[in-house]
Amino acid sequence: MILSDAVVKRMPAYYRHLRELEKEGVRQISSRELGRRMDLTPSQIRQDIHSFGGCGRQGCGYPVTSLREHIGRVLGLGGRRRMTIVGAGNIGRAMARSASFAQNGFETVSIFDRDAAKIGRDVNGTPVQDVAELERLMQEEPAEIAVLAVPAANAQALAERLYACGVRGFWNFAPADLRLPEDAAVENVHLDESLEVLSFRLSQRARAAAEKE
Amino acid sequence: MILSDAVVKRMPAYYRHLRELEKEGVRQISSRELGRRMDLTPSQIRQDIHSFGGCGRQGCGYPVTSLREHIGRVLGLGGRRRMTIVGAGNIGRAMARSASFAQNGFETVSIFDRDAAKIGRDVNGTPVQDVAELERLMQEEPAEIAVLAVPAANAQALAERLYACGVRGFWNFAPADLRLPEDAAVENVHLDESLEVLSFRLSQRARAAAEKE
Repeated sequence: MILSDAVVKRMPAYYRHLRELEKEGVRQISSRELGRRMDLTPSQIRQDIHSFGGCGRQGCGYPVTSLREHIGRVLGLGGRRRMTIVGAGNIGRAMARSASFAQNGFETVSIFDRDAAKIGRDVNGTPVQDVAELERLMQEEPAEIAVLAVPAANAQALAERLYACGVRGFWNFAPADLRLPEDAAVENVHLDESLEVLSFRLSQRARAAAEKE
Repeated sequence: MILSDAVVKRMPAYYRHLRELEKEGVRQISSRELGRRMDLTPSQIRQDIHSFGGCGRQGCGYPVTSLREHIGRVLGLGGRRRMTIVGAGNIGRAMARSASFAQNGFETVSIFDRDAAKIGRDVNGTPVQDVAELERLMQEEPAEIAVLAVPAANAQALAERLYACGVRGFWNFAPADLRLPEDAAVENVHLDESLEVLSFRLSQRARAAAEKE
């Protein structure tokens, strides 16, 4: 299955909407109705679902539960994924405390920081450990995913150390572009940049309004 | 200036890279060298910079500082933008404590929650106020941007109340699609979905590796 980046990015939204429909007790949904909820055209919906291998029946629509389960399997959910958090600052701590990741099977197995004032403190049941001991401690508690919540200047070096420890999934909150071997997967969450895009949209609207006057 | 969504989303990365170059003392940069740093082709760089109105000189490259300043103006940075945070949970508190937003001119003027246990508590110098009093308090302390860090079920209703209070920029961390009038700007940060995309990429690699064997 080869999926475009755009389809991959929409898949979690399908998963979320189908989960909501399940909670509402809906058992079948048409491409038209799902499109209305997701702000996509019915033909876009049919194309997307076809591309990630979901099935429906003409005239009946899609079976909500089995389509949600199918998408969950394609996303690799349902099992457990061990996650280490590197950086016990505001973002790292917020991620460690999130209940929704844990519910989805993403389990925080360790938290690291370099700050002596943070080392030894407990964050949601997990003690903060010294990042100087990363290699040794990761042998005891391996992880598949690393949440990188460190300053930009340290991100690349830490990512390389984590890669050497066997981490292949990088959830990167540092405002830096990581360069890693091809078999590493990187998802960036660049919060500053997201806020700057919002600032651009507000400025654009203000300029458009000023021109109208 | 009409910019495609893709260009808008890249603009903050240009801003970030140019700021780093300034710190390194670089005064001019060619499209080839900037492309190498940003993982884009030189012709893509020239097209992007042209589209958001930046200038360079053939043979000399782009002047780092003035291009960075130009992009900052297009992004609407440099001034101050008043921001209210709705939801004093893990994410809301992390956003309130972030130093980098404040440095960029995004100023947290208020924080709201509905939980009596949180109301009155101080987060980075700002007291958590009762969201039941949102309308009255927003008159005293208006804000242009709202950080929505609330459960999905409450997001739409709160967004509508905030819109009625004059908020036009919505930084939405709730796993919900907001429906607001056309003059509202919404930037979504769907953390669960980002982690699910990472999970998909890891599964995809595992499947590809299994097929090779």
